Order: sequence, then structure tokens, then C-alpha cells
Amino acid sequence: MAEFLDTGVFRLVSPVTVLSYGSVAGSKEGQGPLGSCFDEVIEDSHFGRDTWEQAESQFQLEAVSIAVRKAGITKEDVHTICSGDLINQCIGSTYGLRELEIPFLGIYGACSTMAEGLIISSLLVASGASKCSAAVTSSHFSTAERQFRFPLSYGGQRTPTSQWTCTAAGAVILTDRSEGVRVTGGCIGRITDMGINDINNMGSAMAPAAAETIRRYLTATGTSPEDYDFIVTGDLGLVGSRLVIDFLLKQGIDISAQHRDCGAMIFDPDSQDTHCGGSGCGCSASVLCGHFLPLLENGSARNILFIATGALMSPMSLQQGESIPSIAHLVHFTRR
Amino acid sequence: MAEFLDTGVFRLVSPVTVLSYGSVAGSKEGQGPLGSCFDEVIEDSHFGRDTWEQAESQFQLEAVSIAVRKAGITKEDVHTICSGDLINQCIGSTYGLRELEIPFLGIYGACSTMAEGLIISSLLVASGASKCSAAVTSSHFSTAERQFRFPLSYGGQRTPTSQWTCTAAGAVILTDRSEGVRVTGGCIGRITDMGINDINNMGSAMAPAAAETIRRYLTATGTSPEDYDFIVTGDLGLVGSRLVIDFLLKQGIDISAQHRDCGAMIFDPDSQDTHCGGSGCGCSASVLCGHFLPLLENGSARNILFIATGALMSPMSLQQGESIPSIAHLVHFTRR
Repeated sequence: MAEFLDTGVFRLVSPVTVLSYGSVAGSKEGQGPLGSCFDEVIEDSHFGRDTWEQAESQFQLEAVSIAVRKAGITKEDVHTICSGDLINQCIGSTYGLRELEIPFLGIYGACSTMAEGLIISSLLVASGASKCSAAVTSSHFSTAERQFRFPLSYGGQRTPTSQWTCTAAGAVILTDRSEGVRVTGGCIGRITDMGINDINNMGSAMAPAAAETIRRYLTATGTSPEDYDFIVTGDLGLVGSRLVIDFLLKQGIDISAQHRDCGAMIFDPDSQDTHCGGSGCGCSASVLCGHFLPLLENGSARNILFIATGALMSPMSLQQGESIPSIAHLVHFTRR
Repeated sequence: MAEFLDTGVFRLVSPVTVLSYGSVAGSKEGQGPLGSCFDEVIEDSHFGRDTWEQAESQFQLEAVSIAVRKAGITKEDVHTICSGDLINQCIGSTYGLRELEIPFLGIYGACSTMAEGLIISSLLVASGASKCSAAVTSSHFSTAERQFRFPLSYGGQRTPTSQWTCTAAGAVILTDRSEGVRVTGGCIGRITDMGINDINNMGSAMAPAAAETIRRYLTATGTSPEDYDFIVTGDLGLVGSRLVIDFLLKQGIDISAQHRDCGAMIFDPDSQDTHCGGSGCGCSASVLCGHFLPLLENGSARNILFIATGALMSPMSLQQGESIPSIAHLVHFTRR
């Protein structure tokens, strides 16, 4: 069961617990500051497959397989799986997870996918519909570049506000047992659009959505930033991270001490030429599973808000003169 | 609360009720056998907007607006909305619903979207996380043709097994009150792939997924086809409809008396040149909202299974030599 707190905001009353998680990252991510925390680093960007899209599917399947293996269960024990990615028609997910034969809910939240999947999986478990449910997502530098920007061989210059789509995947398995790291609440994001239309400045487009979701959850739960060890945004990058702190400060909420951003953490901007940091669904998913969930599990943290952010435009919507609508979904993890 | 029946199959214990619904269809759909049942028929395929993609967004917004109006509520009363469509990055949904500011869960299930959205909205309400949640989806002939097949001006010949993507949208609002048409259960589909790779024969690709989901729900609930007034598939069309009946017959399940298919119903194949029938997310959504939910509401039917089917490929996956994976999600509606 869940308790309705405010529009889109809920607290979970029944136990929903992290059973296991897995992360896989590509070569460049493996060379970054968090390189040692991922379960696997895959040097071959094709992951043994013929195309980048097939490689992304393989990353996603691998993340789920790791999580299933670490939990000591079989795929038949996972009753439902929620997944999506950035590729048109989410083929990274559908082809990647096809062989598992786990009942599948396809989602599209751009880079907010990991939080959205965790919210839906949590509700599947909390309602009793599934005893065990997984959330997974992925991104791949090469599938995203050719779809959203330019063919890689074109060698286009990247602007200072641009981010680097991570080649990575993360999977979390949730169950209804009562021990361990719990999901205790969530906030479903509103589509927010401040009129930004620069595809190379996604952090600025997504920061208002993150601020709105964080403010809404803190207000509905009557909590303040000091109640959390970390307030983790998905992939706002260096520019967007400054903006989300500023936006909230203007509303009297100071998250500067607790705030971390997966996109700002995953690469070293000085040595890795990644400009504003990492992005892509796999960025926040792999950093959540590689870095933050272990902190909760080993007792280094007890209370974390995870807010994955997504930019909901397409190349065609931008060609048609539209701005970039964004969204941010929040998942609250606790460990007693 | 929900009760777990089997992998992916659940029964809703808490009341989840249809508060309202709305349907909008395009000119060709309005001229079809079900033309008089839609809330609105829009003659202008651009719906007053500049592009087809913007028109599709307008169809989706209109369907939600009709449902909200018919319910006598305001958009602020809808706590969450689940939506997706066929356009890359689901921009029909994100731009269409942006101005509503309702907490938004983006989904991608191709033409299974209406059933997937209803399942997630049902669980939001059944768990207590939302008191009121909406599911909506749309499709547009012209956005789908240019994305999945050929530019319209190319004038390509259509094959006998092809279907016609409907220009239509449907929206359902669910609440936790106990009177009226109820959602009493559901079955989350498995990705099924029988190796079909003809983009002009989607009904054949999707029929095995529909058969698998129907069989699984009947088995888990211990029911048989005779327990239902109608077993309604989404958009298998004329070829796929024959196949789903045959597949199930081989497993000893005869749904021939109860089976209806929204894709086979929405057009007159003799006079409308639609070959195997209608398709697209908006097909099953508009037929559910325009035809089947009214039958439940006025007492002409008491027990309906709604199984929306989706083909999860993309133009790129087919170019890379992949087959077409499919999925079918089931929603069980009852009226006492």
C-alpha cells in the first residue's frame, strides 16, 4: 500500500526493498573517477555485437543478469520488469530484454527513466501485484550521437555546455521483504518547459524540472535538505547543477551541501574532454547502482533522494521550432 | 491493493473505477462503421496546427479534456497521467500534455499503450498513491506513415496485409470510488517474437503475443471465454484476428464467439480501402472509449477483456535485420 501525500507524491506503507542491483559501464566511463565502482567495465563499445544498437541491448541485458545473479535468484523469480531507453521506439530495451520472457512494461522518460522505472516497480510491489519487480535502463554514446546530433564520422565540434552520453546500464530488483535498503516514497514529475531550445544545453532545460520535483517532495513530506545524506540529481551536469541549486535557493531551500549530480561525477572534465559531464539514461542508472546504493547498503548513508531528469524533445520537435520540455522523477531510499 | 495471481497477472482488491472517458477520431475514422460513437470527429487532419506531430498532440489533449469535462472535474483533480504514442521520443504525448501540468509517466508500448497505461493507472489508484489517474494515447496516420514507412507524397503501394494507422485518441480517467465500471484485474505482457519481419504484416507479428496473454489470464483466473461478453484485441486486423483465434484453438481455448478486434471494426474494408483494418495506439484507445466502455456503462455488457497489442520494432531494427518483437497487455473490466 501507498499513502497519497499530494498530487504525484506518495509514501510507501508496505515494505518495498532493494534486493539487488547491477551496473555495467563502457571504457570511457571505466576510466572516470567512478570507474572502480561498476560491476563490469566493457572495453569493446560493440560488446561483441554487430551494431551499436545491439550493443546497447547487450549492456541492458548484462545489467539485469548481474542483478539477478547477485540476488541468487533466477529470472523466473522476477515477476515484472520496467525498462526504456533513448533509442527510437526504445529498441535498446525491447530487443535487450526479449529473451528474458519477464512480463515487460516499456517506459519512456528520456534520462529520467531509472527513477520512473523504480516508481512503477515500487508500486507493483507495494500494491501486491508483483512480489518482485525490476527497473533497468541504458544509454550508449554512439546510438545517441547519431540519433540526436550528428553521425560520429562527421566530427562535429561540441559546445562548452554539451554533455557526453554515457555508455552504461543499471538495473535494480525490488521485493516485498522488509530488511535492507527501502524505497519509502516518490514524486512523479510534471512536464516543465522554460523555453530552452538548445540541444547542447540540456542541463539548463532539465534543472527547473528537478527543482520543482525536489521542492514538491520536501513540502509534501515536511522535510528539509538536512534530513537527507544526499540529494542526487541524474544528469544535470556542471551548468544544470549550479542552476538547480540557485532555483531552489530563491525559494528558500538550500541543497548545496547535500547535492550531488551523477552527470557531474562520472567523468573528469579536465582530463576526459566531456565538457559539462555525462548524460543519458545509463548515467544516473549506473551511478545509482555503482555508487549510491552501495553507500546505503554499507551504512555510509541512511537517507537519499534520487532525482533522475529527462529532456522530452526529439530532433523533429526541435526542427519544428519547439522548445525542450523536461521532467524529473524522485525516488526516496532509506536504510534504518 | 492487488492480489498476485501468477507472474505478471493480478486481481485488484481495492476498487478502481472508470470515472470518465473521451474519444476523438479523424475524418476517415468518422466515416467508418463506428463513426457515430466517438465524442468528436475532427475533419481537419492538422487540427488547426502547423504540423502533423502537433496535430497528434492536439488529438491527445482533446481526448483528456473531453474526459475531464464529462467527469465534471478539473485537471487539478487528476493526480497522475500515463501516456505514450508511436512518434520517436513520444512527442505526441509530451508536447500534447505539457500544458496540463499533471504529474506524468511516459510509457512506450507501441499500439499496446492504452492497456499499459490503464494497468499503471490502476496500480497507482489501487495502491493508494493516486486517488485519480488517467491513461491516454493517440496515433496519427500521417505521423506514422512518414516515420515508419514512406513519405506520403511518395505514393507507395500498400500490400494486402497492411493496416491503416488510425488518426484518433482515447483517454480514460480512473478513481478509487466503488460504483460503476471497474477494473478488476490485468495481465502484463511478455515480449514475444516468432520471427516475423514484414512491417506490412503487423497483425501476424502481434497475434502470438495476444494469444499468450489471453491464455495466461484465463489460466491464472480459472476462467474460460464463456465468462466474458467480449474478448477485445487491439489492432490485429483481419489476418491477425484469424491467427489469434487459431493459436488459442490449438491450445483448447475457443474465443471465436467472444472475440472482437478494434482494428477490424473501425473501418469498412470494402469501401474504405484499408486492407486488413486499422492500427495505431489511437485505434484501440478510441474504440475502447467510443464503443466498449459505453456498452459496460449502459449494462449491455458486464465482463470484457481488453487486450491491446504492440509491435516493438523500429525502422532501424528492421534495417539491421531484426525480426518484430510484440507484446500484449490485458485489462479486465467488469460491471456488476
